[in-house]
Amino acid sequence: MNIHGTPTRTIRPLPDFAGVEIIDQTLLPHRLEFRTLRTLDDAAEAIAVMRVRGAPLIGVTAAYGLALGLADDAHDTTLETGCARLLATRPTAVNLRWALERMQGVLAPLPAAQRRAAAWHEAAAIADEDVALNQAIGRHGMALLRACHERRARTVQVMTHCNAGWLATVDWGTALAPIYAAFDAGIPVHVWVSETRPRNQGASLTAWELAQHGVPHTVIADNAAGHLMQHGQVDLVIVGADRVAANGDAANKIGTYMKALAAHDNGVPFHVAVPGPTIDWRLADGSGIPIEERAAAEVTHIPGATEDGGVASVRLTPPQSAAANPAFDVTPARLIRSLITERGVCPASAAGLAVLYPRGTPA
Amino acid sequence: MNIHGTPTRTIRPLPDFAGVEIIDQTLLPHRLEFRTLRTLDDAAEAIAVMRVRGAPLIGVTAAYGLALGLADDAHDTTLETGCARLLATRPTAVNLRWALERMQGVLAPLPAAQRRAAAWHEAAAIADEDVALNQAIGRHGMALLRACHERRARTVQVMTHCNAGWLATVDWGTALAPIYAAFDAGIPVHVWVSETRPRNQGASLTAWELAQHGVPHTVIADNAAGHLMQHGQVDLVIVGADRVAANGDAANKIGTYMKALAAHDNGVPFHVAVPGPTIDWRLADGSGIPIEERAAAEVTHIPGATEDGGVASVRLTPPQSAAANPAFDVTPARLIRSLITERGVCPASAAGLAVLYPRGTPA
Repeated sequence: MNIHGTPTRTIRPLPDFAGVEIIDQTLLPHRLEFRTLRTLDDAAEAIAVMRVRGAPLIGVTAAYGLALGLADDAHDTTLETGCARLLATRPTAVNLRWALERMQGVLAPLPAAQRRAAAWHEAAAIADEDVALNQAIGRHGMALLRACHERRARTVQVMTHCNAGWLATVDWGTALAPIYAAFDAGIPVHVWVSETRPRNQGASLTAWELAQHGVPHTVIADNAAGHLMQHGQVDLVIVGADRVAANGDAANKIGTYMKALAAHDNGVPFHVAVPGPTIDWRLADGSGIPIEERAAAEVTHIPGATEDGGVASVRLTPPQSAAANPAFDVTPARLIRSLITERGVCPASAAGLAVLYPRGTPA
Repeated sequence: MNIHGTPTRTIRPLPDFAGVEIIDQTLLPHRLEFRTLRTLDDAAEAIAVMRVRGAPLIGVTAAYGLALGLADDAHDTTLETGCARLLATRPTAVNLRWALERMQGVLAPLPAAQRRAAAWHEAAAIADEDVALNQAIGRHGMALLRACHERRARTVQVMTHCNAGWLATVDWGTALAPIYAAFDAGIPVHVWVSETRPRNQGASLTAWELAQHGVPHTVIADNAAGHLMQHGQVDLVIVGADRVAANGDAANKIGTYMKALAAHDNGVPFHVAVPGPTIDWRLADGSGIPIEERAAAEVTHIPGATEDGGVASVRLTPPQSAAANPAFDVTPARLIRSLITERGVCPASAAGLAVLYPRGTPA
């Protein structure tokens, strides 16, 4: 993806293992600021407060974070406590566990003296592979948009939720990869961006990166999704996922489930773009996916740009009112038309996944 | 309803036809300010910018606004242009048309010299009747909460959307009237308040008035409603309506439809509290209900309380991103368990309504 015309990844290692540079996503869309993570604690903090977020980018950041944690000492205990520390940051996205288990699998058999360099190498490999996975998802998903365009002979109206774009990954995104691929291939496309309260990743991140790429889009309140589908203004929905169970149930940002219900009620195809590392083969269905409960302040307060060009947080609720903030929900596979993976498009079912992943996802 | 311990209506005529006093609801929950409307234009502006809102209160404000418009001249042309001006303020709530047609029906046959006093009298009658309608809705709806409490022997978990409370009416509210009645009768109740983007009437108005009355409640992002229902945390949903068609289809604040879908998918009873004047007997179904499209700025910007105690609006989206803002949606009758009216509880169907309203709603 180009940012101000320059090809940019969301996370970049600095020379000599000095750190990794990320975009501080808590400041978007109002300010584009890069930030350097120099320690494992920096990485854990960045994941926990959502300077980086999105299942694939969380996984890659954790991998680099582990590499940072091996700077002074790479013994078994350091490796294990580092993994535990990073794993505890966020519970729902399985990419975090996947990436750390892959790192451990590579590093544990090595002598401690070789682990640091190997960790940086492996983290970079995970990052590069993420880009390739997303490009493949883009190709497979683009076919759905192209077919829709050919059938309707007009602009394809896609709805998405939260941000499963460039900013949620190393490059290109999962749910947005097919949209960028279609746009770049000249297929006319317009995106309905649901703002995605409470953290507003749609309004602040998806809208920003679509604008950077020049993709036509319109921001809506999450509440408007059903109405637009009732009135034929949505051809298909594509969302990402934080964890997909072996039967196709998909945990994604809170509110995804209601969008899937609305799509189902109106015959709108609902697709989940999911790279292999987001599939949790150990869970038979979505009931076992841990749902993160985040701070009430994310509901009671919201940051935004002030008239004088600053950024401020304002309180939305009466001071005496409590708030609850479950951050994810699980969309049952029965509401999902298909999963768009790097290996192709398949039904959201154990049988559908088994065709593409006969031996599960390689770690 | 008591505000700071004092029984208060949301709209009150001043002596000598001098004006009507309202609460400026655009400032809640951060500031409680009363405001005097002295002209028809004041009333039209207050309705259009939502200083007053909620279908019943819009109707009453329009009735008083018409009375204000007859101060200098009460001839036929003034009456007609005044009604047209008020009717144009907001399209969806049918109470506006209902109240103005009732006013015209009373005033048109009178000599011009008698119209002003008659208009004030009739507006006051509509206001008083609104209170009585809501109290009756409260009694009928409370029976649903009581039955739920007796069946489950624990706190009744009610979800609502937007504000169909005291602030949406003259007193007590429609959807919240059963909750206040149950609370006052000692039935333990907790309310899930969906914030209701983009105008956040849930977070700002419903939370505030529930807090004033001491009713336990928790604010959630609209997106969280489905997840809570999936996990058995909602016993029933009660919402208001801006217009109900003769078949029971209900237009209400944007997002209501998706909550109804989630309720239906999880076997949670979904009730619409609706006074007679909100039923549009001229519409066979909801497809003919006009849906107001409001300003994009309601999506791109949001007001809130700043740390220094002020109120400021902040921008949520990138400057170059467009936004769309349909303000209502229509929930099909098939998703509605029952209508709670002042005449009792009935199925959301033409047959159900016919039992309670054999001759439609009296004007």
